[in-house]
Amino acid sequence: MTTATSTRIYNFSAGPATLPEDVIKQAQQDIWDIADSGIGVMEHSHRGKVFDAVMQETIADCRSIGNISDDYEVLFLQGGATLQFAMVPMNYLGQGKTVDMLHTGVWTKKAIGEAKLFGDVHMAFHGTDCKFVHVPADSEVSYSGKATYVHYCSNNTIAGTEYSHVPATDLPLVVDTSSHMFSKPLDISKHAIVFAGAQKNLGPSGCTLVIIRKDFIERANPNMPLMLNYAKQAEKGSMLNTPPTFAIYIMGRVFKWILEMGGLEAMAKHNQAKAKIIYDAIDGIDFYGAVAKLDSRSMMNITFRTPNADLDKKFIAEALDADLSGLKGHRSVGGLRASVYNAFPVEGCKALVEFMKNFAAKNG
Amino acid sequence: MTTATSTRIYNFSAGPATLPEDVIKQAQQDIWDIADSGIGVMEHSHRGKVFDAVMQETIADCRSIGNISDDYEVLFLQGGATLQFAMVPMNYLGQGKTVDMLHTGVWTKKAIGEAKLFGDVHMAFHGTDCKFVHVPADSEVSYSGKATYVHYCSNNTIAGTEYSHVPATDLPLVVDTSSHMFSKPLDISKHAIVFAGAQKNLGPSGCTLVIIRKDFIERANPNMPLMLNYAKQAEKGSMLNTPPTFAIYIMGRVFKWILEMGGLEAMAKHNQAKAKIIYDAIDGIDFYGAVAKLDSRSMMNITFRTPNADLDKKFIAEALDADLSGLKGHRSVGGLRASVYNAFPVEGCKALVEFMKNFAAKNG
Repeated sequence: MTTATSTRIYNFSAGPATLPEDVIKQAQQDIWDIADSGIGVMEHSHRGKVFDAVMQETIADCRSIGNISDDYEVLFLQGGATLQFAMVPMNYLGQGKTVDMLHTGVWTKKAIGEAKLFGDVHMAFHGTDCKFVHVPADSEVSYSGKATYVHYCSNNTIAGTEYSHVPATDLPLVVDTSSHMFSKPLDISKHAIVFAGAQKNLGPSGCTLVIIRKDFIERANPNMPLMLNYAKQAEKGSMLNTPPTFAIYIMGRVFKWILEMGGLEAMAKHNQAKAKIIYDAIDGIDFYGAVAKLDSRSMMNITFRTPNADLDKKFIAEALDADLSGLKGHRSVGGLRASVYNAFPVEGCKALVEFMKNFAAKNG
Repeated sequence: MTTATSTRIYNFSAGPATLPEDVIKQAQQDIWDIADSGIGVMEHSHRGKVFDAVMQETIADCRSIGNISDDYEVLFLQGGATLQFAMVPMNYLGQGKTVDMLHTGVWTKKAIGEAKLFGDVHMAFHGTDCKFVHVPADSEVSYSGKATYVHYCSNNTIAGTEYSHVPATDLPLVVDTSSHMFSKPLDISKHAIVFAGAQKNLGPSGCTLVIIRKDFIERANPNMPLMLNYAKQAEKGSMLNTPPTFAIYIMGRVFKWILEMGGLEAMAKHNQAKAKIIYDAIDGIDFYGAVAKLDSRSMMNITFRTPNADLDKKFIAEALDADLSGLKGHRSVGGLRASVYNAFPVEGCKALVEFMKNFAAKNG
């Protein structure tokens, strides 16, 4: 088959976001007819052989990429990270039980709100004091000493901050990795639950990757509705009902692409190189300022500002005219943001820097 | 652009299921670059102009097809019908509150299990007595007289039964229409909630259409987690978090296809004609027997049997060799099932009947 040939532009969207072009081209074929079955991937029964092969390969490739041991289940759920914000405390809190929260931005704020419906929240780190421009070092975290688990968000899409360490604790550790999952190696074995909405680095929106330790599943509240019950979901291999088959298929193709790229060590080098191109411009051109503190800068979501909000607005509009899309900061904070997930090409980073130089020269 | 040209076969899968080929061809283009934006539909921010147009058109077309008044919200949620089985009682039951259930098969059984976690269940109709081969006439239903709402499933995929009426009650009526939504006209105004997993008649799996009366939303439990809160979902136009954008896009294309086909009256005629072709063969060839009672036969899921289970098995295998896929009955009941949703072509029904005749002649 041949594929659409129209020109694509550089898409800095924070999510849903750029997917690998080879994955899209394969999907163009497979939505019509996958694996010579005469049926498109969206139309296959989730209980048939063709989709079963997709599912099993996707799980195996995920385990391979993430170095995920058999102590963990790999689940594909729905509802995004936001449903996990509720599902975790529904399953693990209850009257008198506490979660220790490392509050680093909008996504932990949402998790805090949901957790309060089911138990007590101890603020082990309160990032509002620093306006979320950095994530806490271990020395800045004050655990309650009575928590059932600890929750943190390892990459903060809106603030543009990212942990370069796993918080040191012996408590079960729950992490929201939505916006940088599989962008670099992560020590899964230090966590009880790792969850990530797919729509940044893994695939389209509508699927949540949940990696959960089997012995932690056993500690969950057993009286949960089916779809909110980790044990039932694990028992049925994420097929308790019809899973989001197309989203899982795309995720599987993205996993194969990550493996072809060389896995997470190679991915990290690729992402560091891309981010450096843009941060060097932000630091090197007097006109721009970075938002995140140096020790907490995200490789995925690069937040920065021109000298004022009017120029930010002008920057966004003129960048779009230059086929650089999605550079507006999150509506809650303003400013500029370049999201450069795994599949975002290095050429796009260079094109942005060219634009930044020209814009600064004209408006500085 | 050109599209994949490999041959497609007849797909009788109960879901995920056949989609209109024109929709798939359009999607082949749009996943690469939609609306000349230079970005594929899976990669667009859900808050940007391109996806916003998709969302607004999808809602408007849905309202137009279903004749849905402004008294109702049209929501696109996640978790399938199975999450609705829990979300409805979580929001509307509670200690001492009762739901009246019209139990007509596996899907109401699941709904009953979930409802019992949150309140009392009164069996207003108990279909196990008839092995689910028919749905109840109004005279067969015994309401409790104290229910908060009534739940029924208007098309039973596994048994192959379908209501041709809306149960007569003044109580708020909740209906699971997953497997025949928009296959024929439905009087939405008689219902408090209409919900349908998309993967039968509406699109790919991973999105649930929920049509809910605004005054019923107001009666919901306000202390629900965000994703399980109808009011919050409605307030944010299904964009409380990143919605399943690609599934919504496909649903939108399917809605446009339904409108082009002439809307629900035309769809019903088309589906009646298709179902008649197959039921006529079942009734006319001594070899086959229908499962569902005559007054309850589904137009979407046609359940039948050969004289014995071994022949059923042989039928399924030989049919697949003849490019007729997905004719196996649900694993819980066995037998044969031809699912002929909106997008399934009339030619496929004729091909099945040809095969049925030959198979009966050889094995009868």
